[in-house]
Amino acid sequence: MAPPPSTVVSPVVTLIVRVLTFTCLLISVIIIATNKATSIIDINLATNTATSVEMKFSDFYAYRYMLASGVIGMAYTVLQIAFTIFYVSSGNRFGGDGLTLLEFYGDKVLSYLLATGAAACFGLTVDLNRLPENDSEAQGFLNKANAAASLLFIGFIFSAISSVFSSLSLPKRG
Amino acid sequence: MAPPPSTVVSPVVTLIVRVLTFTCLLISVIIIATNKATSIIDINLATNTATSVEMKFSDFYAYRYMLASGVIGMAYTVLQIAFTIFYVSSGNRFGGDGLTLLEFYGDKVLSYLLATGAAACFGLTVDLNRLPENDSEAQGFLNKANAAASLLFIGFIFSAISSVFSSLSLPKRG
Repeated sequence: MAPPPSTVVSPVVTLIVRVLTFTCLLISVIIIATNKATSIIDINLATNTATSVEMKFSDFYAYRYMLASGVIGMAYTVLQIAFTIFYVSSGNRFGGDGLTLLEFYGDKVLSYLLATGAAACFGLTVDLNRLPENDSEAQGFLNKANAAASLLFIGFIFSAISSVFSSLSLPKRG
Repeated sequence: MAPPPSTVVSPVVTLIVRVLTFTCLLISVIIIATNKATSIIDINLATNTATSVEMKFSDFYAYRYMLASGVIGMAYTVLQIAFTIFYVSSGNRFGGDGLTLLEFYGDKVLSYLLATGAAACFGLTVDLNRLPENDSEAQGFLNKANAAASLLFIGFIFSAISSVFSSLSLPKRG
């Protein structure tokens, strides 16, 4: 039998994990929001013209959802970083037990949001990547989307760790 | 301030939620595993022939991942149902505090697995659904995939509820 956890996680560790979450989300959001490519779909040798199509992240619902989950995640994480800095500097928990419960549910919901954001992007990108028609531009677009999803996934791992911490910090029950 | 939760959730409620999870996963797995379609990609009027392509769930990595997450989810949920039935019928928790911790982490991991499974399927299906080339067979295939993902998502909601319950049932800390 494992002994029941007897100490609550140090607020400094909590703070570090949240800052890491924020950093991953920020880079992921920048990569996906700036992701653009011009893919050539048809070359006409007679008229010496090429028909091309421009791709942006907003052309795909999966990437839009991923961007939204990253942005919401950043807003929530900044708020929690502020609360944790208050806790570290003053020694008192801002809002008491009520906020601890809110943090427990908030962390759970946020980690689900980030997990689904990254998974939706991977679900689309992995299968699009296997299309034989992709040129190097399209491939670059999809690789960047994969990079953004990977970073969001790392951010999700950190937010899942935060969620474990906030579960372990739940108010004691009588 | 909300008062800290003072009672642990009744094992009968836990059991009901787990049975609901299992039911959703079972139907979702059946739908996705039997999903097949023959889509016509080219009709040649001169030779009166049609070129068609058969689609199965296993042609798409996102659907394979969804099936895997559903099957793993069913195995885990059956195990937890057995433990809960033991608890309800004997009044003792099988395995004591050690198993409570294992349940806490297991429920967390499982709910993330189901969330990402459903999201990966939605991420692919929503954007494939918008392709103008889809015929009615392809549309039917994607609609079934959507139905399976929706059921898996409902199963995820139930497993997230189980995860909240198992967090609230964590051993008391001194």
